Amino acid sequence: MARLSTRLTERLGIAHPILSAPMALAGGGALAAAVTQAGGLGLVGGGYGDSRWLAAQAQAAGNARTGCGFITWSLARQPHLLGEALARRPAALMLSFGDPRPFAAEIAAAEVPLICQCQSLADVRVALEAGAAIIVAQGGEAGGHGHRRATFPFVPEVADLLARESPETLLLAAGGVGDGRGLAAALALGADGVLVGTRFWASREALVHARHHQAALDATGDQTVRSSVPDIARRLAWPAPFDIRTADNAFIARWRGREDDLRAVIAVESAAYAAAFAAGDPEEAAVIFGEAAGLVHDIPPAGELVERMVAEAVACLQSAAARIVD
Amino acid sequence: MARLSTRLTERLGIAHPILSAPMALAGGGALAAAVTQAGGLGLVGGGYGDSRWLAAQAQAAGNARTGCGFITWSLARQPHLLGEALARRPAALMLSFGDPRPFAAEIAAAEVPLICQCQSLADVRVALEAGAAIIVAQGGEAGGHGHRRATFPFVPEVADLLARESPETLLLAAGGVGDGRGLAAALALGADGVLVGTRFWASREALVHARHHQAALDATGDQTVRSSVPDIARRLAWPAPFDIRTADNAFIARWRGREDDLRAVIAVESAAYAAAFAAGDPEEAAVIFGEAAGLVHDIPPAGELVERMVAEAVACLQSAAARIVD
Repeated sequence: MARLSTRLTERLGIAHPILSAPMALAGGGALAAAVTQAGGLGLVGGGYGDSRWLAAQAQAAGNARTGCGFITWSLARQPHLLGEALARRPAALMLSFGDPRPFAAEIAAAEVPLICQCQSLADVRVALEAGAAIIVAQGGEAGGHGHRRATFPFVPEVADLLARESPETLLLAAGGVGDGRGLAAALALGADGVLVGTRFWASREALVHARHHQAALDATGDQTVRSSVPDIARRLAWPAPFDIRTADNAFIARWRGREDDLRAVIAVESAAYAAAFAAGDPEEAAVIFGEAAGLVHDIPPAGELVERMVAEAVACLQSAAARIVD
Repeated sequence: MARLSTRLTERLGIAHPILSAPMALAGGGALAAAVTQAGGLGLVGGGYGDSRWLAAQAQAAGNARTGCGFITWSLARQPHLLGEALARRPAALMLSFGDPRPFAAEIAAAEVPLICQCQSLADVRVALEAGAAIIVAQGGEAGGHGHRRATFPFVPEVADLLARESPETLLLAAGGVGDGRGLAAALALGADGVLVGTRFWASREALVHARHHQAALDATGDQTVRSSVPDIARRLAWPAPFDIRTADNAFIARWRGREDDLRAVIAVESAAYAAAFAAGDPEEAAVIFGEAAGLVHDIPPAGELVERMVAEAVACLQSAAARIVD
């Protein structure tokens, strides 16, 4: 099978320039291992920080070489989790949503490559100060947390910044990358590879309720929206400016724009939310996917998705290059 | 010079798969003619409909073969403008923001290709009913009016819809396309070409105040935002769900989130707004550019931009294709 060789594949020693996003709750060891075994690199989602869950996911990943990602502002409340993660010798350590600089020295001392997810040019500069080996330029079309830049213009602007100020730093595109066309487009925009969330969320190994998977199969990309409603319902203290893209379902429609009303009845609503999420109710809790849900038509093994994505990207680039005439 | 041949270049008989967006006020005959003369196709911005302005711009375009675009809901209030435009035998007629179906028969009778700009999959289905020859899938990162989908995942999802339901209909990507990397990425995502606004707004022929051009040169792509503030200030009756992306300047910061307060003092504020816009004040009126402003570093002739975009896209696709290894 033809493949794509980039600075990312060379630097990380992987076959394909594809990383799975460290999705809180959904991205466990089995998913990360499957992505790695298919030639990409899987990242376990450290999320809000649960030492036992992380240990269990490390076990689930088995011998596969995987990385780990944390929500930075949450890690700051339990900094000991970083040491636990580094002790497992991850292939990379990713930090998203918050200031990575307080953790930079510990990660560098462990000689683990630091990946920083960025939502603005200011974030990129902070990530460079932290010594990031890899920048993820994440557009707001991504599922889950993020902010408002869009992948298509954000990636080349970050590529230009890195070319000027830190040419050895690698760049991944994230947000809306759902298939091989997205991988090909990311390379054209100047990225060295992609970080993929929603498409791997919609895989067999993801820790996602079957009814949530069905909701993604039923949705078009028009049917998602950013809000703070799920974070209020879960009583998670997300800092500005981040909000979360989810399916635009009954729960979101009821509370979006009425956030203060939700806060006023949070004791009742947070319990109802937790019960609905546990039951996989696709209308009464957050179903966390991005606009790329419109490109999801099946729930295959993650390894098959990696292979499809590479084959399609190769075909896309060959077909686009064939349009060049002299 | 190497060029890119796609279904769009073949269908329209043009050298390069690049159209200039019919930007209200900014996209006049000189800009459209320059884009056409460089091998793309320039579209004059019919905007809110001013018969004399349109006649003057047709004269400014001279003998160049150009198209024309209208804001659909505004055209519905002055439908005679369509006949005037069609009488000039435009290379294409583009409709954006509203239901194109009431105008479809008149455009078809004139044998002018209909281009429909779409912000959702529902819009695409309406455009197909109207017999659109070309769909523009516009992401919300675009400058000016639009809605919330993002170019990167929206374009391939529309490509899939067209492949299933109307494979002869062509597809253009719009929103965030600022250079040749964007053109290359658009082709990879399944588009037949691109519609470019902000980058041509930042050209010598655009009808844009020099101080507004300077604001774009100074801005990064982080410094824009969508709102309804400029439309309220201009007393334009824009229908839901459209809003407008502009520079995130003092004027926008003052009123965004306080739209009702602005409406309460509109008699004073609309006059102040008009004066500030006429003076080119970059802080006290809307400066209409999109996230691609972060890719704008000069204000060259539009024809030079077309040439650069094609040369860069060719280089990008060659370099991306060179990453394929067997």
